[in-house]
Amino acid sequence: MSLLVVGSVAFDSVHTPTASRERVLGGSAVYCSYAASYFTPVHLVGVVGEDWPAEHTELLRARGIDMSGLRVIPGAETFRWTGKYLPNMNDRETLEVHLNVFAQFDPVLTAPQRECPYVFLANGSPRLQLKTLQQMRQPRLVVADTMDLWIREEHDELMRLFRRLDGVVLNDSEARLLTQDENIVEAGRKVRAMGPKFVVIKKGEHGAMYFSERRTIVLPAYPTPQVVDPTGAGDSFAGGMMGYLAENGRDDPDAIKVAMAYGTLVASFNVEDFSLDRMRRIERRAVDDRMAEYREMLRL
Amino acid sequence: MSLLVVGSVAFDSVHTPTASRERVLGGSAVYCSYAASYFTPVHLVGVVGEDWPAEHTELLRARGIDMSGLRVIPGAETFRWTGKYLPNMNDRETLEVHLNVFAQFDPVLTAPQRECPYVFLANGSPRLQLKTLQQMRQPRLVVADTMDLWIREEHDELMRLFRRLDGVVLNDSEARLLTQDENIVEAGRKVRAMGPKFVVIKKGEHGAMYFSERRTIVLPAYPTPQVVDPTGAGDSFAGGMMGYLAENGRDDPDAIKVAMAYGTLVASFNVEDFSLDRMRRIERRAVDDRMAEYREMLRL
Repeated sequence: MSLLVVGSVAFDSVHTPTASRERVLGGSAVYCSYAASYFTPVHLVGVVGEDWPAEHTELLRARGIDMSGLRVIPGAETFRWTGKYLPNMNDRETLEVHLNVFAQFDPVLTAPQRECPYVFLANGSPRLQLKTLQQMRQPRLVVADTMDLWIREEHDELMRLFRRLDGVVLNDSEARLLTQDENIVEAGRKVRAMGPKFVVIKKGEHGAMYFSERRTIVLPAYPTPQVVDPTGAGDSFAGGMMGYLAENGRDDPDAIKVAMAYGTLVASFNVEDFSLDRMRRIERRAVDDRMAEYREMLRL
Repeated sequence: MSLLVVGSVAFDSVHTPTASRERVLGGSAVYCSYAASYFTPVHLVGVVGEDWPAEHTELLRARGIDMSGLRVIPGAETFRWTGKYLPNMNDRETLEVHLNVFAQFDPVLTAPQRECPYVFLANGSPRLQLKTLQQMRQPRLVVADTMDLWIREEHDELMRLFRRLDGVVLNDSEARLLTQDENIVEAGRKVRAMGPKFVVIKKGEHGAMYFSERRTIVLPAYPTPQVVDPTGAGDSFAGGMMGYLAENGRDDPDAIKVAMAYGTLVASFNVEDFSLDRMRRIERRAVDDRMAEYREMLRL
């Protein structure tokens, strides 16, 4: 089944303790769509400025992603983000954000986009996420990401969104901020009580957790020694997870667990190079091989 | 098979954000022995002062732990530690340490103790750990813990010890300190290159990792929502791990993985109350029940 991904499309400038890259392809919808494309047909919805190179669109299209939902605004500039990773490569500092065209992003979905059964509302304001959701016909599974900015500045709108979602995906620090609870298990339960049927908390190098009314699941990250650039790890995790669920037409906890494992593994590839560079060099086969290894590692 | 545990026996004063306990039973050898006692016969070797209450010895003896190796030094005081946990319950500050009798601890093992096939050298100076190891007849598996103090102050002695060990167990922060590497996968590999055949890195609420020449394993912590007091979590982890290996007479990577899972689960009980209070209320059955749940959680 097909997956709709709505979110940011960006130029990222990334500084790590050992290397830097300027203006590389990035954005939540880009990482998420690319990761999901290993599993299922993806429709990307986003916006860019006229500084956007056609090669970037081609790169995504080459993986079968439907790019007809990418609007190009003449006379405007693409969203730009600049960040710097601390030596532990798990924490980062945002140095610059220029929302540019993304600030006024107001997606109008086409008929085929409205019919998508699986929806991922990647990073964007809860207002934007709600407006997108309202256009969907009868989605089977709607999951949204959020971030500290919206938790702080659009809390009420975010709560309105949460009540309409099947699932929420967020970072451990965001879950703590949102619930004011330091214990991540308690925080996960509290986010779930805000409305969504399930909550997935991403812990970076420490893996991910799942909370539904009756189940709690923890999976570790895949132990890759070569973390080059963690940018997009959370979005590629979400993309792998949603892609697997859409591929299999499922949304039950057992399937979400396997989906989280796939998300973990796609993300483990993603962090091994800048931008989409590592994902570009793999096929689905490589993800499945790593899955076999991961499954064996966790077999007790 | 039997397990020898050598390490500190202490009075702990523990402050958490919500509660405190003064002078409760603690120490690395105590937590480790108690946790191991669910699996195998344990011989504890340690030292206390004349302020030591007989009830504490009885409590351990009641779980079948051989306490004949606990020396009581007249006119001296027992090791005391006072610590305070930060709101995240994963980081702590040591407020006071009084080594007292532990500073001069010089264990002389009896013949049955020297014959133990499994040995865990819990927290103590590398000098003390080496002296203990030299007395062992032909141990099958020798594993040691260490801590930041010895990494900083007795580095050469620690390296001498490492070259004689089968395994080392240490915290993530200690692994980073020892290797000066922030990537925990790289740090684990570097510690292994210092001599031991395998290294286990404890990550607290984020689980544990295993590194041998050819394998890397990561297991998540059991997601308990009720973390009351993390004191002794690392030692009870090591105790559960060593206890399971001794019970089954094994030391291969597949067995160590299951052993780490048992260590994880015993530790997950331990943090649910102060001192040994939670472990005192469970039998082996409770650990196995949690194991069935944990195994199912990780089945992909």
